[in-house]
Amino acid sequence: MDPTQLRLLLEQIADGRLSTDDALVRLKHLPFEDMGFARVDHHRALRSGAPEVIYCPGKTTKQVVAIAGKLVKAGANVLATRAERKVYTAVKRRWPRAKYHDAARIITILKPKQPKPVGNVLVVCAGTSDIPVAEEARVTAETLGSRVTTVYDAGVAGIHRLLASAHEIQAANAVVVVAGMEGALASVVGGMAACPVIAVPTSVGYGASFGGIAPLLTMLNSCANGISVVNIDNGFGAAYCASLINKPAVD
Amino acid sequence: MDPTQLRLLLEQIADGRLSTDDALVRLKHLPFEDMGFARVDHHRALRSGAPEVIYCPGKTTKQVVAIAGKLVKAGANVLATRAERKVYTAVKRRWPRAKYHDAARIITILKPKQPKPVGNVLVVCAGTSDIPVAEEARVTAETLGSRVTTVYDAGVAGIHRLLASAHEIQAANAVVVVAGMEGALASVVGGMAACPVIAVPTSVGYGASFGGIAPLLTMLNSCANGISVVNIDNGFGAAYCASLINKPAVD
Amino acid sequence: MDPTQLRLLLEQIADGRLSTDDALVRLKHLPFEDMGFARVDHHRALRSGAPEVIYCPGKTTKQVVAIAGKLVKAGANVLATRAERKVYTAVKRRWPRAKYHDAARIITILKPKQPKPVGNVLVVCAGTSDIPVAEEARVTAETLGSRVTTVYDAGVAGIHRLLASAHEIQAANAVVVVAGMEGALASVVGGMAACPVIAVPTSVGYGASFGGIAPLLTMLNSCANGISVVNIDNGFGAAYCASLINKPAVD
Amino acid sequence: MDPTQLRLLLEQIADGRLSTDDALVRLKHLPFEDMGFARVDHHRALRSGAPEVIYCPGKTTKQVVAIAGKLVKAGANVLATRAERKVYTAVKRRWPRAKYHDAARIITILKPKQPKPVGNVLVVCAGTSDIPVAEEARVTAETLGSRVTTVYDAGVAGIHRLLASAHEIQAANAVVVVAGMEGALASVVGGMAACPVIAVPTSVGYGASFGGIAPLLTMLNSCANGISVVNIDNGFGAAYCASLINKPAVD
Amino acid sequence: MDPTQLRLLLEQIADGRLSTDDALVRLKHLPFEDMGFARVDHHRALRSGAPEVIYCPGKTTKQVVAIAGKLVKAGANVLATRAERKVYTAVKRRWPRAKYHDAARIITILKPKQPKPVGNVLVVCAGTSDIPVAEEARVTAETLGSRVTTVYDAGVAGIHRLLASAHEIQAANAVVVVAGMEGALASVVGGMAACPVIAVPTSVGYGASFGGIAPLLTMLNSCANGISVVNIDNGFGAAYCASLINKPAVD
Amino acid sequence: MDPTQLRLLLEQIADGRLSTDDALVRLKHLPFEDMGFARVDHHRALRSGAPEVIYCPGKTTKQVVAIAGKLVKAGANVLATRAERKVYTAVKRRWPRAKYHDAARIITILKPKQPKPVGNVLVVCAGTSDIPVAEEARVTAETLGSRVTTVYDAGVAGIHRLLASAHEIQAANAVVVVAGMEGALASVVGGMAACPVIAVPTSVGYGASFGGIAPLLTMLNSCANGISVVNIDNGFGAAYCASLINKPAVD
Amino acid sequence: MDPTQLRLLLEQIADGRLSTDDALVRLKHLPFEDMGFARVDHHRALRSGAPEVIYCPGKTTKQVVAIAGKLVKAGANVLATRAERKVYTAVKRRWPRAKYHDAARIITILKPKQPKPVGNVLVVCAGTSDIPVAEEARVTAETLGSRVTTVYDAGVAGIHRLLASAHEIQAANAVVVVAGMEGALASVVGGMAACPVIAVPTSVGYGASFGGIAPLLTMLNSCANGISVVNIDNGFGAAYCASLINKPAVD
Amino acid sequence: MDPTQLRLLLEQIADGRLSTDDALVRLKHLPFEDMGFARVDHHRALRSGAPEVIYCPGKTTKQVVAIAGKLVKAGANVLATRAERKVYTAVKRRWPRAKYHDAARIITILKPKQPKPVGNVLVVCAGTSDIPVAEEARVTAETLGSRVTTVYDAGVAGIHRLLASAHEIQAANAVVVVAGMEGALASVVGGMAACPVIAVPTSVGYGASFGGIAPLLTMLNSCANGISVVNIDNGFGAAYCASLINKPAVD
Repeated sequence: MDPTQLRLLLEQIADGRLSTDDALVRLKHLPFEDMGFARVDHHRALRSGAPEVIYCPGKTTKQVVAIAGKLVKAGANVLATRAERKVYTAVKRRWPRAKYHDAARIITILKPKQPKPVGNVLVVCAGTSDIPVAEEARVTAETLGSRVTTVYDAGVAGIHRLLASAHEIQAANAVVVVAGMEGALASVVGGMAACPVIAVPTSVGYGASFGGIAPLLTMLNSCANGISVVNIDNGFGAAYCASLINKPAVD
Repeated sequence: MDPTQLRLLLEQIADGRLSTDDALVRLKHLPFEDMGFARVDHHRALRSGAPEVIYCPGKTTKQVVAIAGKLVKAGANVLATRAERKVYTAVKRRWPRAKYHDAARIITILKPKQPKPVGNVLVVCAGTSDIPVAEEARVTAETLGSRVTTVYDAGVAGIHRLLASAHEIQAANAVVVVAGMEGALASVVGGMAACPVIAVPTSVGYGASFGGIAPLLTMLNSCANGISVVNIDNGFGAAYCASLINKPAVD
Repeated sequence: MDPTQLRLLLEQIADGRLSTDDALVRLKHLPFEDMGFARVDHHRALRSGAPEVIYCPGKTTKQVVAIAGKLVKAGANVLATRAERKVYTAVKRRWPRAKYHDAARIITILKPKQPKPVGNVLVVCAGTSDIPVAEEARVTAETLGSRVTTVYDAGVAGIHRLLASAHEIQAANAVVVVAGMEGALASVVGGMAACPVIAVPTSVGYGASFGGIAPLLTMLNSCANGISVVNIDNGFGAAYCASLINKPAVD
Repeated sequence: MDPTQLRLLLEQIADGRLSTDDALVRLKHLPFEDMGFARVDHHRALRSGAPEVIYCPGKTTKQVVAIAGKLVKAGANVLATRAERKVYTAVKRRWPRAKYHDAARIITILKPKQPKPVGNVLVVCAGTSDIPVAEEARVTAETLGSRVTTVYDAGVAGIHRLLASAHEIQAANAVVVVAGMEGALASVVGGMAACPVIAVPTSVGYGASFGGIAPLLTMLNSCANGISVVNIDNGFGAAYCASLINKPAVD
Repeated sequence: MDPTQLRLLLEQIADGRLSTDDALVRLKHLPFEDMGFARVDHHRALRSGAPEVIYCPGKTTKQVVAIAGKLVKAGANVLATRAERKVYTAVKRRWPRAKYHDAARIITILKPKQPKPVGNVLVVCAGTSDIPVAEEARVTAETLGSRVTTVYDAGVAGIHRLLASAHEIQAANAVVVVAGMEGALASVVGGMAACPVIAVPTSVGYGASFGGIAPLLTMLNSCANGISVVNIDNGFGAAYCASLINKPAVD
Repeated sequence: MDPTQLRLLLEQIADGRLSTDDALVRLKHLPFEDMGFARVDHHRALRSGAPEVIYCPGKTTKQVVAIAGKLVKAGANVLATRAERKVYTAVKRRWPRAKYHDAARIITILKPKQPKPVGNVLVVCAGTSDIPVAEEARVTAETLGSRVTTVYDAGVAGIHRLLASAHEIQAANAVVVVAGMEGALASVVGGMAACPVIAVPTSVGYGASFGGIAPLLTMLNSCANGISVVNIDNGFGAAYCASLINKPAVD
Repeated sequence: MDPTQLRLLLEQIADGRLSTDDALVRLKHLPFEDMGFARVDHHRALRSGAPEVIYCPGKTTKQVVAIAGKLVKAGANVLATRAERKVYTAVKRRWPRAKYHDAARIITILKPKQPKPVGNVLVVCAGTSDIPVAEEARVTAETLGSRVTTVYDAGVAGIHRLLASAHEIQAANAVVVVAGMEGALASVVGGMAACPVIAVPTSVGYGASFGGIAPLLTMLNSCANGISVVNIDNGFGAAYCASLINKPAVD
Repeated sequence: MDPTQLRLLLEQIADGRLSTDDALVRLKHLPFEDMGFARVDHHRALRSGAPEVIYCPGKTTKQVVAIAGKLVKAGANVLATRAERKVYTAVKRRWPRAKYHDAARIITILKPKQPKPVGNVLVVCAGTSDIPVAEEARVTAETLGSRVTTVYDAGVAGIHRLLASAHEIQAANAVVVVAGMEGALASVVGGMAACPVIAVPTSVGYGASFGGIAPLLTMLNSCANGISVVNIDNGFGAAYCASLINKPAVD
């Protein structure tokens, strides 16, 4: 599927350096590793510029450790999201350098030498209750190599609290806006920023917030330009997008 | 149902000034006029301080004119909302002093001598497309006797356009905020105002605005205090509330 | 953002009484206090006439106590909503004058000398199960300085139970109507009241009440005038609006 | 499916009065008439006590006339609902005794001798715009042989307009309540009636009435007992139920 | 609100047998008993033919016992629905004749002499999991004096299981159909019955049954005539309607 | 993507019969034809056993004719669904053998020699208004080579009308059930059939059918086994599935 | 309802070999066994080719064991879905040959001699978290006699992982595609398969997946042909359909 | 709100170069131009790097022309979206260099000298019916200065049509994916791209696509990383984001 690799392969066959059967095997089996319950995609780093991430819910601790093992062995940084502490305990036992980011519920197993963070990703959140999602974004962006600044509890009901951070907003390469309840923060920040804004609705709120539908709709309908939206509570996804924008050649 | 009136009635019966049958008749027939297709509630002015308003959709032109006739005869100001121009033409023919407010789609037939408008109701809207609903609010509030100021096209994507009107917001007795798309304006105004804010979501927008559901949810979930909400596109209802707040003794 | 304050500041700069840098600092830092996880808005009292309120869900006990500390220090009344009893225990330990309103799930820390309650806010609820939300409204309105009357369990299925309270409805400056299930109470009270009605749908009910959507829609579509609506179970928000209406200059 | 008929049939077979093949034919073909595009159910009258009704939308004029022809031939009263005037014109041409009920959009072709209407079905509606649905109920109930009384425009915002009809409500065998917008009328009537109430939500309203969802939910969640609900705008269905209740042995 | 009583009262005033103040007091206080947290409606029996029923969720055990006490004292049968066993224990302690219907989750406290059950209410349910709701219907109808027959687990996927009960369906005065999942049973029974059918959607199912929305919509859209619908899982409400139909003069 | 073809290609390269560049070109360009606005997938017949079908809405007449031209040229049967008559007129002008199926709104351009229809697909629909969708299914299945039987207007309210066709249901290889309103027909047929049932909800109905959501949910929640569901009004899709089942090796 | 059986019965009556009463009894009682809380449908195997399956939720352990007993006694294979382990423990105690499929949450009690699995059903799932639903499908299809192949964790974000299994997809008689989150897998597999695809949306995901609504809608709207859909998480239902397709004459 | 400008202003005041009143005036009036019905935000170019765009629906032709006039006068490029042809006619009359992009429904009035397009934005769409939205994206991105490549009709049902464009996907700086129906294209492209993907759901489809909700949910739940989403049919918004990513310093 990658024409460059395909061309190389074809040339090797034409050259006789590779048999037809071997070529078929390579095409089929190289890019991932089938563990029965999971097909680990080692090719992803080459293809999309970042390692495969482990989304923990619905996986047993044993499965998470096994997948992490494959990734570590392949020389990748490991990022496991929505991880309960008990999963971390098991991971820590095996890789003592593993780290648990409490608020973010993320486990990281980083290679000893990490490059210096680059660029400028800003994470803004509306209320204290939105901090867990904002932290998921911060840790993700940092793990992907971005320098991150945060502005927390800057809801629009006291607009001056947000305006005080106008400089940070103007200076960013990409902004992640995290907000629950009515989610209006995205529109106001969107109107102040000169860079793309990735909006994350959160499930913070009650009643007619319907578990995050209210801020999701708010953000999708924003009258400000340059705003795009990810799933409810998806701090990881927003940070992933922001990092791609912040440093076009991730890793 | 009105204890004061009931007491009076009871005293009249006790005094022999009123027969049992007459009392029963009064209790049953006085407060409204049954036109077959409509029961005009003349008692409403006494009870809630404002005349009955004619909501035109679903009524024939003939029915609107007939109800207006009953109200005019009873000495009330007439306010007919969501009126098409053809209804106005028929009304105008009968009451030359009738007036049609185009953008607001309202017909008014006012008594010759109107009291001077009082207080200070502010109507703010987010975009040019929200103006019809904002105008419905303005005309309604003015007909109910309120002095009205307007600030139009002050969406949050250019927050400075709104901040420039901070003084008007601080000076109001009641603010009506009209906004479609994501409806974030209500929260920002709510954070700046010292008086109650009545928020009106509009059906302006497309896609995931779902005909006004997006701003409706935004407004219901507002993190700012002092905000309450009326139905989608219900400029009339918001202005009615605002007028009650602006001048506790309407009329 | 407050033109009056801004003008004052500008004049001080022009007079040389304030340096440019100092002015910038003031503009940025005065109106709130950044605690990292929360930006306490001391300016809100000046701006909107009531102190900042602590919404407890999603905040740790430690965070609630810290924010309360800032507010107490700033000389404000403290109102913490949706507080679990364990939060109260921690608060009580620090401020022995703190009080827990069980049914309302509210913690208050009031300044020793409270002004005499003024005006007339009426809180009506439809069923016994709606009482917690109604109590949240009552305690909030009282803390904000309003005199409050209550009429509980007055659903429309036995309309005479409601009519018996017609006098209280007629006498109020603002009415808060709390109702779950089908929420029809708001329309009937709305038709009897001469003042604004703030309707609070509750999540009381089952099946097709969909956690409060049924009464929310009922209230938004009310055929009675003068009704506006707040979020499901938001007794606090309704009382806040009602207090602003009841006493135009809160505090 | 009808055990009595089945037993009869079986006995005829056992007696040799009916061959096996004939029995099979009867079982298969007797109870309906297959017209290719429609299977007219002549058995319905025997089975459920009322003739098959023609629901016109989605049927061509030609199809309606053809089905009506089968019913007329079978000696039944014909009731065609949601019929456009052009369908009526075609029907009238063939059966001059056919009658079109404008507001109700119903065509009836009645047998010359109709029995005297019996019992007491009350149809109440909330607003003038709900009258078409109420009329569909009235005409249906009358065609099914019930005596019908109507109370129109008796919404709950002026509760005295409804209380004035308390006697009619108490006297009914079955009440059909037709209401759009918030649909609160059903609960109030339900609390006043001693008989079953069939509630019909209508699509009258705008914005958050969502084409009748608001009153539908209101009615399903009613706190009054004895209320059941039919589909939005289904005046026919409600009247059918009410007639079954009103006259247990519908002819 | 009851014209007959009102006339009597008015005559007593006119006769001098009743003072104005006394009349006012009676009008206000007679029909219900205000317990602070509940207004017990003793008038309901007179007005709608059945005692007030205690819906337990959201009420404390103490409140349930207190309300039951008022009803027992007033000489009524008591029916408490959705009651947990611990509520029953408290009730049983006070009224040893109280009875708990497990599957139905109903507490009854019946007067020693109950009249013989009359008429014929049929309760049909689709699957074994629907039995609790069906039992709520059965116990309710029996407590209200109806004779009840039941047909359980007669879903439409094995239509012959339902056809086998055709005779019971034909013989009923009113049928309660209880079904979750797709709720198709109502339509099939509706096509076989000659009496009104009250359909109860249940929350039995998963995925796209959305907690009972699927059968609710099925039943509201039924192509069979004579079907009306109550709230999801509302076995009580359906039985109440069925009893009113079964014995026009309940109690 | 087709391993067999890929292997062949690889062998040709290894043999020197094909240059690397030519192989790349083939891999990229062979399987479809890029028309700018459409990429016609000639490979589909090989891959999934049936030609590409033209879904007309959103395509101009000119585009439909152009795509049809490519398919005709490639020697395929053409099936254009949801085609307005004016599209047919243009198609007919170019290919006189084209045929328009009115009720189904389908255009077919068949190759002169069609194989004899095989197998046994049964199409059942609930009401006369569902016939257009049923016809879309019939014409599709026939064009794909299946023999089709139809049973129309066999709704469950008169269950005997359906039982009369029990033999046809038992004899089918695949059944397509088309039903709007409450869609209960699928469950009943599902309980009678021995083969897979493909259920098609239709948008026939009003009010709480919500444009087909009601029957869609009914069908997804069916208690009968062997039922799967396609999109609302998607008669084509159901027939496509049924044909694959009916004749495992479609053409 | 089965014409062949009916004809036999009728002939026996005609022959005098069966009395009318006996025939009636047979028609009514033969095809199922009424256990009070359940009507076990022994006729289903004859009618639709597969034994009745026990859906455990909402049934007590005792009820499950009782129903299983009736089925075992009737000589059928038993398949109990969504069974908790404690139910299995009770079943195992009675039938030691019972087996519990952990991931699938299925209990099977198979007859000692099972025929050799036939055909080729492929079960594909998108992610590790979808495996329980995929396993429910696998065990069901195997119990119904099909040979099953599985491809797990083959989501579309790494399309090469799926393409590597192109051969398995091309070789299947029926494919079950299990996917949560966005459910796009069904469309891609649908485009690659030559046989019918049964898509199962799962409740795996969070936020805007709304418990499986997102993949459900994705699958219903698939642009690939030959796809039909079952309820969310309904692995059983999909496998049932796939088995009917795989082996037209399911034992 | 822009600290740099504010500081400059403050310094001018401190220097005496600017009076307090003048400063206030500047702060209030500089950044936008109030036209009564619209507040044109000239400051936006400075603040967020792109000119204000005119969204035409809900604006009269006269209003569009007036706003365009202000923008032209301010020396900006004009981009008017969702413009009907009649609006274009009026615009063309005034500015002959105006251009109408038919499929995109966009009017542009560009300054004579446009800089050379830079970077690499790829616009991919799933079907022919999605082209209008894709074109809105293309024209927008080009007007904002980006070089744009397009790949149209590359839906996932024929995955090879998409794989053939793998090179274009790998080479882009930002990809806009436009898809209706089930919207699966976004996930597949997301898995192949190394840059951010902006997904645009379209309202193309019918039935359970619910006007674009289906692809919207699909895209929000995508299992591929680096995907963010904009409103249904919002090609403009996606292109705006993509341009910001493509050329960090727009204009």
